[in-house]
Amino acid sequence: MLIDEVSQKPGFWSSSGPKSDIVLSSRIRLARNIHSLPFPAVLEENESYIIRHSIERFASESRYSGNVRLIDLKRLEDHEKRFLRERNIITHEMETSPKSLVLLSSGEDFTILVNEQDHYRIQVIKPGLQIEEAYRLADTVDDELNRFVFYAYSEDYGYLTASPANLGTGLRCSMLLHLPALAFKNRIGEMVPYLKERGVDLRGTVGENRKTIGSIFQISNRTSLGLSEVDIIEIMDSAANVLVSTEDSLRDETVLTSRVKLEDRVFRSLGILRYARTVSYGEAMEHLSNVRFGVILAFIKGLEIHVINDMMVNIQRSHLQNYFGETIVSNGQCDRLRAEYISAMLRNIGER
Amino acid sequence: MLIDEVSQKPGFWSSSGPKSDIVLSSRIRLARNIHSLPFPAVLEENESYIIRHSIERFASESRYSGNVRLIDLKRLEDHEKRFLRERNIITHEMETSPKSLVLLSSGEDFTILVNEQDHYRIQVIKPGLQIEEAYRLADTVDDELNRFVFYAYSEDYGYLTASPANLGTGLRCSMLLHLPALAFKNRIGEMVPYLKERGVDLRGTVGENRKTIGSIFQISNRTSLGLSEVDIIEIMDSAANVLVSTEDSLRDETVLTSRVKLEDRVFRSLGILRYARTVSYGEAMEHLSNVRFGVILAFIKGLEIHVINDMMVNIQRSHLQNYFGETIVSNGQCDRLRAEYISAMLRNIGER
Repeated sequence: MLIDEVSQKPGFWSSSGPKSDIVLSSRIRLARNIHSLPFPAVLEENESYIIRHSIERFASESRYSGNVRLIDLKRLEDHEKRFLRERNIITHEMETSPKSLVLLSSGEDFTILVNEQDHYRIQVIKPGLQIEEAYRLADTVDDELNRFVFYAYSEDYGYLTASPANLGTGLRCSMLLHLPALAFKNRIGEMVPYLKERGVDLRGTVGENRKTIGSIFQISNRTSLGLSEVDIIEIMDSAANVLVSTEDSLRDETVLTSRVKLEDRVFRSLGILRYARTVSYGEAMEHLSNVRFGVILAFIKGLEIHVINDMMVNIQRSHLQNYFGETIVSNGQCDRLRAEYISAMLRNIGER
Repeated sequence: MLIDEVSQKPGFWSSSGPKSDIVLSSRIRLARNIHSLPFPAVLEENESYIIRHSIERFASESRYSGNVRLIDLKRLEDHEKRFLRERNIITHEMETSPKSLVLLSSGEDFTILVNEQDHYRIQVIKPGLQIEEAYRLADTVDDELNRFVFYAYSEDYGYLTASPANLGTGLRCSMLLHLPALAFKNRIGEMVPYLKERGVDLRGTVGENRKTIGSIFQISNRTSLGLSEVDIIEIMDSAANVLVSTEDSLRDETVLTSRVKLEDRVFRSLGILRYARTVSYGEAMEHLSNVRFGVILAFIKGLEIHVINDMMVNIQRSHLQNYFGETIVSNGQCDRLRAEYISAMLRNIGER
């Protein structure tokens, strides 16, 4: 079973990395296309063959052969695709596309998305602030893939990509950050223009805006064209460090000035999570975010951050279905199983 | 110490009585005044002497002598008066009046309020639906008091009272009921006119309206004039029985149709009460009401209703001050101590 295999490996969120109390993950994505073939959106069936053939050769003949597995998404059950998407392995678009494949490496070190927006997207996700390390691995995979694929590349524009936003290096670098103190103090708004000036977008994880759940935000590079890979990594690294140090100092300040209010919020969330009989994904994320903050501030003892990180992944629908071994047919059932899972995970936590 | 003495006796709420899952208490109050003396609001200092002298004789010479204690409220500390008011022994008006006294009997079986609105108000509060039993005791005390006081009485109007609403029998009969199913189903509104037609007022416990906290409502007889004591007791008894049976059948129905929603509400309240670090009186009452409902419905095991009833009394400010032996100087401090008290009382309750 694909799901069992994937879910037994530790997710990127459950390992710890540098600054991982704030930076959940660092992601590198390289967009690559085959020379003189149309982009996936307008690709004919017979042209698709070339793309598939190249990735099959990569899987069996590259230095990674034996440690990778190529999966044709149209052969998967819906809930298996959903499971992969919930783990951030494939994108929402790929769930419904008949042309898409994904190449998984052992340990989920890297993945290659085939026929998403671009023919190939090399993706590396590492826990914590490890943007440079993630880039180094992506770069190595890129060199290897290039042995099997003749890349579309222009002297003027660099790598040609389906979206103009990725032209140039084809590099998209993003990080997920947990910023509860900035959110608590309503300070996210002022960070947006500050980062924008420096070429970095700060977004919520819901929709395209600053809206988010659980105080989890994403930063990514605004553009790829006209900058070198090293420039982009530097910009992103420095943006992340600014957010980390701002969040850190706000945490100290907030504990000093609003300790009771903060403790109350953290422990109420813990109480609700331990006792609710039905809880939506959004509400659960809000409370898990507060509990995570409470663990970081040492209000809550006996609970590890990585356990909460895992829960944030595992409270999604296909993950719950897999955990309980029960087909989920309604939102009501899903919300009840989510509440049951959470209260089991938090048993005996936070007793006075 | 008066407070220690009073608080060691079981409150009327902590004992159980008939239908006490729904009827918290039955209260009888008889308004009596001395013949040809002005009502307390317009009483002169020298006239007040007669009222005091009569109740002192009652205390030392009646059949209750040795088992009663007469307390001059102006000799008490503010927080002691507040404590008595929080236990429903004295009224809010008496807290600030320099003329008021209260006679307490052992076990709080009955009290006589002196110089509240009337010269004397005999008050009996019993747990559960015991309106007749309460009346019998009040009637006996009334006969005894009459040996020491020449009552103001008119052949046309009956007992003369400060408020025209009490003219006639001088009997005010009221009950506190916990009606969470009627409140959950938004059915309180339709009970109001039904009871009004039958001479019974249904009110919330906050202000004069249907507003309430914790789904606790009060019913009382609308008028005293033109009805005999037996009529009033009958009317009130039947009103209480209608509410009890409606609430009972709604409870069964609600559990059948909304079990998950109801369980979720009950257990979330329990979770918040166990974990909050600061909680207002009103919010605590709402959650305690849900928890009480959960105990009655057997969702929550290992918790007795009388413990929750006690908590509903003990989370008031002077009671908390007494419990912690700590002077409460701010609302913030009060809310923190309330949260601490509640979480201590609910330790280990409701674990899955």
